[in-house]
Amino acid sequence: MMIKKITGGVTAAKGFEAAGVSAGIKYQDRMDMALVYSKAPCVLAGTFTSNQVKAAPVLWDQQIVQLSSSGQAVIVNAGIANACTGQEGMNYCKRTAARAAQALGIPENAVLVASTGVIGMQLPMEKIEAGVEKLAAQKADTLEAGDSAARAIMTTDTVSKQAAAQIEVGGVPVTIGGMSKGSGMIHPNMCTMLAFVTTDAVISKELLTKAVKEDVKDTFNMISVDGDTSTNDTLLVMANGMAQNPEILDGTPEYEAFLEALHYVNATLARMMAGDGEGAKALLEVTVSGAQTKEQARTLSRSVVSSNLVKAAVYGHDANWGRILCALGYSGVSFDPEKVDVAFVSGEGTVQVCKDGMATDYSEELAGRILSADEVSVLVDMHAGEQTATAWGCDLTYDYVKINADYRS
Amino acid sequence: MMIKKITGGVTAAKGFEAAGVSAGIKYQDRMDMALVYSKAPCVLAGTFTSNQVKAAPVLWDQQIVQLSSSGQAVIVNAGIANACTGQEGMNYCKRTAARAAQALGIPENAVLVASTGVIGMQLPMEKIEAGVEKLAAQKADTLEAGDSAARAIMTTDTVSKQAAAQIEVGGVPVTIGGMSKGSGMIHPNMCTMLAFVTTDAVISKELLTKAVKEDVKDTFNMISVDGDTSTNDTLLVMANGMAQNPEILDGTPEYEAFLEALHYVNATLARMMAGDGEGAKALLEVTVSGAQTKEQARTLSRSVVSSNLVKAAVYGHDANWGRILCALGYSGVSFDPEKVDVAFVSGEGTVQVCKDGMATDYSEELAGRILSADEVSVLVDMHAGEQTATAWGCDLTYDYVKINADYRS
Repeated sequence: MMIKKITGGVTAAKGFEAAGVSAGIKYQDRMDMALVYSKAPCVLAGTFTSNQVKAAPVLWDQQIVQLSSSGQAVIVNAGIANACTGQEGMNYCKRTAARAAQALGIPENAVLVASTGVIGMQLPMEKIEAGVEKLAAQKADTLEAGDSAARAIMTTDTVSKQAAAQIEVGGVPVTIGGMSKGSGMIHPNMCTMLAFVTTDAVISKELLTKAVKEDVKDTFNMISVDGDTSTNDTLLVMANGMAQNPEILDGTPEYEAFLEALHYVNATLARMMAGDGEGAKALLEVTVSGAQTKEQARTLSRSVVSSNLVKAAVYGHDANWGRILCALGYSGVSFDPEKVDVAFVSGEGTVQVCKDGMATDYSEELAGRILSADEVSVLVDMHAGEQTATAWGCDLTYDYVKINADYRS
Repeated sequence: MMIKKITGGVTAAKGFEAAGVSAGIKYQDRMDMALVYSKAPCVLAGTFTSNQVKAAPVLWDQQIVQLSSSGQAVIVNAGIANACTGQEGMNYCKRTAARAAQALGIPENAVLVASTGVIGMQLPMEKIEAGVEKLAAQKADTLEAGDSAARAIMTTDTVSKQAAAQIEVGGVPVTIGGMSKGSGMIHPNMCTMLAFVTTDAVISKELLTKAVKEDVKDTFNMISVDGDTSTNDTLLVMANGMAQNPEILDGTPEYEAFLEALHYVNATLARMMAGDGEGAKALLEVTVSGAQTKEQARTLSRSVVSSNLVKAAVYGHDANWGRILCALGYSGVSFDPEKVDVAFVSGEGTVQVCKDGMATDYSEELAGRILSADEVSVLVDMHAGEQTATAWGCDLTYDYVKINADYRS
């Protein structure tokens, strides 16, 4: 089954509108609030942070996703996380939803909210409410509107993140598009990543939920910037049915195509978040093959991509493969170290640095050149089975420290 | 029961000798090999890395500790870890032990070995063997000799680490002393920390092993520099019985005193390793009280002390307590976030920044001053039970990145 990669983000699918505005919440010189809106009620699916400390908007959205039959809008602010804010924080979610419901002419329990930024501060509600009014007034179904929204949800991100794909279902084009923000506190389980994916597919809530839960294991949950799992991680997927395709059913080729398109959007957004990790100079992609189980392949690749020492070595363009063996070794997976092979790959070439758990006679100069690329892949073969997984992260740089030593000020 | 803190390290206890020499293994301008030697055979206890990838010296020592009835010497080299070196690496352990046995006139299976440094390189055996000869010739029971050994095992450590204490058992003074090296790849479970503790106590192997296993849970396993558990972590404890005290027996006040002295030595070494973490400007001490179980208190405090974002905030003197709540939240322990209190304490004062999971009305200026000290404590009260644990780490600095981007070159 073929998917077609297309331009755009949350407004790529039929019937979705978006907006980004400046509300002056924390940043004064840029957009910091976004809206995603659907002309028709949507089936909802979502995954949220596994952190015991959940931000108020996470608690709000979990309720909507679980209890509401449909949703129609998401209001996002960047700058303040609305986490560790107690009942007051919950009240702010409700007030935001109420104001958006009124401005958009939809039910209050069809409005989702999302926040990202500093933990422990209360939201400036007047600014949020004024922002909601502006968003409702400016929303549009253009790619430009989607782009504004994608830029408005950024915090320390340096680029906005969007992806979209199209498939055919019963002769009808079905579109999936999304946007996300990442940068720091990224170690999704579920990751402060926020991601919003929209589709015009006709699909049941149950099947959409199944597709999302399955796919995040290989996309958003496979990225790490710093090993810190945020209080606000949220992925929301909205399907409004406006493509009017024959309903996508489990076990069909159409479902496989839908999964493939969803995976493309999610994986593209996840990979962009990893490459744009705070202070990052390089995207680090770690693929572990030859593992006994899929779960072990995921655990091993995540352990390598999360290692401060591996990340610092990549920053230093140092082929210090011993740190990779070390990170595999403390992942919790049992294996025979004397069977492990490691290679580095980038646009500059390929070099095998470790064979059967020991150094090969590789060229340090070539290895250094390979590691100096913007995107570096580590290929690990465990020689223990047939399973493969890929995780994404970034190098650890001076700028990561700088950004996070100064973040609040 | 009182313990007396005394000066010294591995030569503080009766009958122990040590030496440190320059062997030119990797470093050319400093000592890089050390010897710890006992005039009488010792009962041995040890804990080793839980990493699946274990360095050759770890495998060698595990065998000696488990199978030999006694040990009498340890040969340590800094610069090359002898990890991921296959059968050749194991042969080098055997050759080192054989040479030391000959030079010291003791059995080969009474010689332990330990290495720290780059993974994946083979040891230069001629230099190691020449170093062993020099060590055997220069060994002495003086505090100066112990100090030389403590300096010779350093890699990126900036200070040598020693501690010693004395108790009385049946009117006889019993001494425990030790040395360690840490710096990077420190997240013991068991941690490349190396630690060697010597005592002249009369105590059985079984009871010594019990004491060590119990104590590491609250000392060496409670420190973290970077979350990377090394391939070489080793703690060896040697008891030669030369104090001629009445044997220390389980369940007695004497055992309690021994435990207390051992804890003092181990905790002092552990704390020094945390404060001297690679690039560290500050020691970070995290005490979690009010936990439901001891194990939960340990898990929670380790999660906070290991968080890159908390560590970067300490470096920036930023009272970003939200990151502390966040790290508690992803530790895997269940708790009510709305009961958690957080305070910062240092020589500059005390400030409570979070009460019942929300911000207090604290002074940012005072908090910043407290966080600018060399030693910063975070006190967390979960209000969920009676258990307490303390973990030690350090801030995350530009220099950590610099050291680890350049380590091999």
